[in-house]
Amino acid sequence: MTTWLIPLEKALTEHLAAAQFDDARTLLRSLDPVDIATLIASLPPEQALPAYRLLPKTTAAHTFAYLEPDTQEALLRLFTTGEIGTVMQGLYDDDAADLLEELPAGVVKRLLRTVSPEHRRTLNQLLRYPEDSAGSVLTTEFVDLKAAMTVEAAFRYIRAQGPNKETVYTCYVTDSDRHLQGVLTVRELLLAKETALVGDLMQRQVQFVRTTEDRERVAQLFTRYDLMALPVVDSEDRLVGIITADDVMDILQEEATEDIEKMAAITPTDKPYLKTGVFATYRTRIPWLLLLMISATFTGIIITRFEAALTASVALTAFIPMLMGTGGNSGSQSSVTLIRVLALGEVQLRDIGRVLWKELRIALLCGITLAAAVYVKLQLVDRLLLGVAVTTTEALVICLTLVATVVCAKLLGCTLPLLAKRLGLDPAVMASPFITTVVDVLSLLMLFGTATLLL
Amino acid sequence: MTTWLIPLEKALTEHLAAAQFDDARTLLRSLDPVDIATLIASLPPEQALPAYRLLPKTTAAHTFAYLEPDTQEALLRLFTTGEIGTVMQGLYDDDAADLLEELPAGVVKRLLRTVSPEHRRTLNQLLRYPEDSAGSVLTTEFVDLKAAMTVEAAFRYIRAQGPNKETVYTCYVTDSDRHLQGVLTVRELLLAKETALVGDLMQRQVQFVRTTEDRERVAQLFTRYDLMALPVVDSEDRLVGIITADDVMDILQEEATEDIEKMAAITPTDKPYLKTGVFATYRTRIPWLLLLMISATFTGIIITRFEAALTASVALTAFIPMLMGTGGNSGSQSSVTLIRVLALGEVQLRDIGRVLWKELRIALLCGITLAAAVYVKLQLVDRLLLGVAVTTTEALVICLTLVATVVCAKLLGCTLPLLAKRLGLDPAVMASPFITTVVDVLSLLMLFGTATLLL
Repeated sequence: MTTWLIPLEKALTEHLAAAQFDDARTLLRSLDPVDIATLIASLPPEQALPAYRLLPKTTAAHTFAYLEPDTQEALLRLFTTGEIGTVMQGLYDDDAADLLEELPAGVVKRLLRTVSPEHRRTLNQLLRYPEDSAGSVLTTEFVDLKAAMTVEAAFRYIRAQGPNKETVYTCYVTDSDRHLQGVLTVRELLLAKETALVGDLMQRQVQFVRTTEDRERVAQLFTRYDLMALPVVDSEDRLVGIITADDVMDILQEEATEDIEKMAAITPTDKPYLKTGVFATYRTRIPWLLLLMISATFTGIIITRFEAALTASVALTAFIPMLMGTGGNSGSQSSVTLIRVLALGEVQLRDIGRVLWKELRIALLCGITLAAAVYVKLQLVDRLLLGVAVTTTEALVICLTLVATVVCAKLLGCTLPLLAKRLGLDPAVMASPFITTVVDVLSLLMLFGTATLLL
Repeated sequence: MTTWLIPLEKALTEHLAAAQFDDARTLLRSLDPVDIATLIASLPPEQALPAYRLLPKTTAAHTFAYLEPDTQEALLRLFTTGEIGTVMQGLYDDDAADLLEELPAGVVKRLLRTVSPEHRRTLNQLLRYPEDSAGSVLTTEFVDLKAAMTVEAAFRYIRAQGPNKETVYTCYVTDSDRHLQGVLTVRELLLAKETALVGDLMQRQVQFVRTTEDRERVAQLFTRYDLMALPVVDSEDRLVGIITADDVMDILQEEATEDIEKMAAITPTDKPYLKTGVFATYRTRIPWLLLLMISATFTGIIITRFEAALTASVALTAFIPMLMGTGGNSGSQSSVTLIRVLALGEVQLRDIGRVLWKELRIALLCGITLAAAVYVKLQLVDRLLLGVAVTTTEALVICLTLVATVVCAKLLGCTLPLLAKRLGLDPAVMASPFITTVVDVLSLLMLFGTATLLL
């Protein structure tokens, strides 16, 4: 909970405990639905329902949309049929569909009984769109104008429709078959003559997406074209809904979180951290740890195999962690950079040549710098300060392996995310932990290869 | 460049080369300023200016805002004073300020000569806000209403001001001293009676930020309250500007990219990957590689110290890479999770107790699962298949160290980002590479400690 809400929570609990409902109502009415939801979720179960019942109708529905699924479910089980109906009518369709998705089947049945058959059809349609598709985040509550309307008629229509629409500022013009013809903003309507025709004012070139497209593409269009809303059409080019900027901000946050989690070898979830149980979090982490641990055994096998070489040279043994660490870090720098620019749409698959050429030169620069630093360290610290005898050949083996490892790591680091994208996989799985494991094996093989060759 | 623009680029180049300016103009007019900017940036320098001169005035200014700084500079050097003036007038103040920030001083001087003294004052003020502050992303072009206006008067005012404002949909009500009094949307104005007073309709509780607040806080308010615009006030509570949703989407993208880069041990830049030179990218990566390499030498020193123990047990040596890898992965899972939830504002500093308790239990579950897997692997694969002799004591040392390492790694992983936040540092620097280096040292010490104790 945000810090400033804590004293309010205390006051609310006290009001409710003392049955001072007017004070509680005054307190709640001064707040935004998001904050009311936070407060209600923090109340003991027996106080949550009375507190919720103090809210005015529309605030109640919006507050409900912001509650966590478990609190929603608990309240719904206590609600009267009338209260359920109010919530379902008060919610925007996309919020209602999200709600239905999270609830157990029994509760969903009770909810759907309170809505009109037409409303139920809309909700069912929304529930059928695949997860993470444009369809799954659209809202059917937009203003659709006709080309033959005058500006005056359009404003009359907007005034009549406005209270129930998620946004009124971007209006879409459709023909009688619901095909998208153009777009017109309220700002343009305000600046036009009252007698002008919508068809003459509207912009005919409209950015749109299909219901089945990935929501990442939606986010890319919004950020590229600074959109406030984006129309979504079905396979027959009919307008089925719009996506609004506030939903895109959530998409941006969620997609970034998902990518970050995948990069850290965690199965993404959309549940908030503190609300997720220990066992649920454990399940998002342990498979990757096991998988990576198994692949790390290869490194162990290699070390065991080359034991003879190891015991012959203390300098080489001491160098292994530094070599593997540097290789992993170099590789993850490149892979993480590529994963991010692919997600932002900054780099396409056909840029692979430019990417490889750029990373190769960076890798050589980094590799040579690091090798020079290691050489200086071997001569000054190890030989002079610590008195470890490092032969020139050993120093050469170490420096050469380091350059080779950095080059391999960076080239692999930028190739693997592109390859994943090419194969239709999520590039984010090719992040640090995976690259590190591969690079560990490669770097050891190169170390022992060079050592066998030169020593 | 997006794939669908490639044929257009070819056509445009051909039109310009053949001096078919009407065709080129028709082609450009069908596009959005963002896409025109992409095309113009891809043209050879001698074609960019003629192409730009084909654009209508307002499109030209918006297109200019979307160009990369180097193309902007090149064009500005070729512009007439009149053309510079048109661009400066056509740009929104925040875009103009961004432009001035990127350009060399000589060009800035020429630009500022074309604007009115009042405009220059606004721009100078915008340039003085610290980087990444709310002030640095605000726009001064908003609609400010007075409480005494009627709805009709408000609409007249909006119609008069609208063309030059970045958004007209959220209007702010200020008193004669420019103090923020309330907020009112065009939707509310549309639904109200023409004779109603702005002061009676406006919502008095307004979310706002100060110019000096971090833009991450701006993003948190937008996503929490589903805002379309957020007012920014100075230290004396006077309204100086607003932040709009499209800028927040950019902030969300940039903040996520910055965090991801820091997590992968890269110094963040705001330049696009393919546009950044090899040497510039090298400079964002090499300091961290060097730093982490130096700290990895400690691991080497430890291994050298405990050489005797190592040569005594092949199983232990072979186990080191797996131990260090698993420790690093476990730690980075926790640190990356914490870094992200801190950035999203989901977890606060005072949640540290709950976080530690949760991570401790997850760590024990993960540690025990991994140790069990390793034990089975030692008995089945190593002993039976590979014929490596692993004593029960060795197996015990390995399993105990693994559990201890996972617990340490996860606790460190969640504590260090919180500690960084407490010290006012960016939690993202406490990500995988840093944690991995610390955990490597700790895990080795624990391994040799347990081995010395039990063997």
